[in-house]
Amino acid sequence: MPADESTTPQPAPRRIVVLAGGVGGSRFTRGVLAAWPQAEVTVIANTADDITLHGLRICPDIDTMLYTLGGGIDEAKGWGRRDEGWLIGEELAAYGAEPTWFGLGDRDIATHLVRTQMLGNGYPLSQVTEVLAARWLADLPRLRVLPMTDDRVETHVLITDSDTASGRRAVHFQEFWVRLHAAPAVEQVVFVGIEQASPAPGVLDALAEADLILLAPSNPVVSIGPILAVPGIRGALRTAGAPVVGFSGILGGAPVLGMADKLLPAIGVEVSAAGVGRHYGPRSGTGILDAWLVDAADEAAAATLAAEGLPTLPMPLLMTDPAATARFVTAGAAFARPPRPAA
Amino acid sequence: MPADESTTPQPAPRRIVVLAGGVGGSRFTRGVLAAWPQAEVTVIANTADDITLHGLRICPDIDTMLYTLGGGIDEAKGWGRRDEGWLIGEELAAYGAEPTWFGLGDRDIATHLVRTQMLGNGYPLSQVTEVLAARWLADLPRLRVLPMTDDRVETHVLITDSDTASGRRAVHFQEFWVRLHAAPAVEQVVFVGIEQASPAPGVLDALAEADLILLAPSNPVVSIGPILAVPGIRGALRTAGAPVVGFSGILGGAPVLGMADKLLPAIGVEVSAAGVGRHYGPRSGTGILDAWLVDAADEAAAATLAAEGLPTLPMPLLMTDPAATARFVTAGAAFARPPRPAA
Repeated sequence: MPADESTTPQPAPRRIVVLAGGVGGSRFTRGVLAAWPQAEVTVIANTADDITLHGLRICPDIDTMLYTLGGGIDEAKGWGRRDEGWLIGEELAAYGAEPTWFGLGDRDIATHLVRTQMLGNGYPLSQVTEVLAARWLADLPRLRVLPMTDDRVETHVLITDSDTASGRRAVHFQEFWVRLHAAPAVEQVVFVGIEQASPAPGVLDALAEADLILLAPSNPVVSIGPILAVPGIRGALRTAGAPVVGFSGILGGAPVLGMADKLLPAIGVEVSAAGVGRHYGPRSGTGILDAWLVDAADEAAAATLAAEGLPTLPMPLLMTDPAATARFVTAGAAFARPPRPAA
Repeated sequence: MPADESTTPQPAPRRIVVLAGGVGGSRFTRGVLAAWPQAEVTVIANTADDITLHGLRICPDIDTMLYTLGGGIDEAKGWGRRDEGWLIGEELAAYGAEPTWFGLGDRDIATHLVRTQMLGNGYPLSQVTEVLAARWLADLPRLRVLPMTDDRVETHVLITDSDTASGRRAVHFQEFWVRLHAAPAVEQVVFVGIEQASPAPGVLDALAEADLILLAPSNPVVSIGPILAVPGIRGALRTAGAPVVGFSGILGGAPVLGMADKLLPAIGVEVSAAGVGRHYGPRSGTGILDAWLVDAADEAAAATLAAEGLPTLPMPLLMTDPAATARFVTAGAAFARPPRPAA
């Protein structure tokens, strides 16, 4: 006798896509892998944080993802390599080589050397990433990391600067973040090159073939923002057959990681779980989400957003460990695609 | 009352040029600086050993010179940085990045990063070298290191290789030396690009303005050889007003450093102080030397060469310390330009 289908829970997703930035996105992906141990997971990683320093092409979000999932991350910091050395930085400073504000570890530099050389030889970033992943994800073949695009896109931040004639100055996001500690007032955020960018090979197919799409609780402005701004990706989310579930990185009114609070106002979005939820918006309207998860502390916002048409689930969203993350991603998936009702 | 000029020894040289390779050339240059503490010394360094690995442009001879004279050398090895780290090499190997046979230290890589980036930005090697020297030779402004040329020249070695259809194979000199330990039979040595190369800015002027020109006891085939092969340099030595003094690196029939014995036969030169002396030849004939110094062990060769027209001085040539080197370079200079005889 067959099992009673009416009580069978929905099958576990087999093909999951995660849109992600660096530190938070990597922790989130750990939870996704823990939640569904059989699923194939494709991460579409932000590449607009990428920067060229000392002639090296650096992709912070991809590297953080590979190091974190491959066991090479400095767990305490959340980025960079563990057992890292700092001789090269010392030497570059002795040569007076600028800039000195971006700390490049010795082990980390090896990654950038391999990448820079391959890019110089004409390989696209997606293939370079595959080669790097062959080392880091050798034991995790069900995880694939794709750059959002093979084209060069860089986030620049227009900051208030009274020392300039115009009263403002454009700096690379990394300079804003690492050197200026996100202190200056932000007037505008620009993804240089985004209009000419195309999704990297595999990105649109992954979205079309997914049975679950997740937006990590990464920075909505400079991590998820550029991914959604690559022409074609937002449309692919709108038309995807899979439910699209987003997770708020703003918990109780403040970001857990990073500095979304410094950047959201520049794009006219309130620094709150509700503000970001409205910014993404429901697919039933003009947005991209079928469901939105906010922290338990933002329960009031959940009710408001639900009333506005965005199904919102409040629950603890702190990524204290992969199991905690797995709990809320599983809940989010179930919330977005509830078990089939009795026939 | 003026000093009696008839007994005044020749004045110390004020402008000295040294043609040099890496390890031996650097030790030799230390001796030259010790011999004449007031002189301005210009080193014309071999760049045909240069190689691009992992996208980094590496100039072994220039770097060894800067590190040695700037106090950064690994004194025990004679090349590379002291207090060196090896994390990057470990990482590159973990990525499977080829080649793995050339050990690149972490501190050393910083030098290559600065160079590679500047070359990529369009600066010629001579200007790059000046920037690197600004760090290493800051306390030694009377020493200037010039690459022999700003053009790309690379020594390739045609070796016997029974695994190939032709029975031979061309490899970069570094592969021959570092990877193959100079073991294969050498059929030919080729300086790729040398015909199109020009002396770097300052090289010909330095030779024309020198009052003493020294050939370091570096490898005659792959260190001094390429310098002499840059179109214009050999001619400048032939016409220079200063005496040209060479020093044998073959002592008692064997090279003290390196592997000249593996390479001299390939250019038809006997592995001996006499063979190399004849190879350079006297300026009174078609050669470039006014004087040739051989080791005390090669006294018999000295007599033979002198009889053949090359003034040759035998004396101990082991560079045990800068003072020992200073003794024989001073003797060589005096031998080439004896004190003015009484009027």
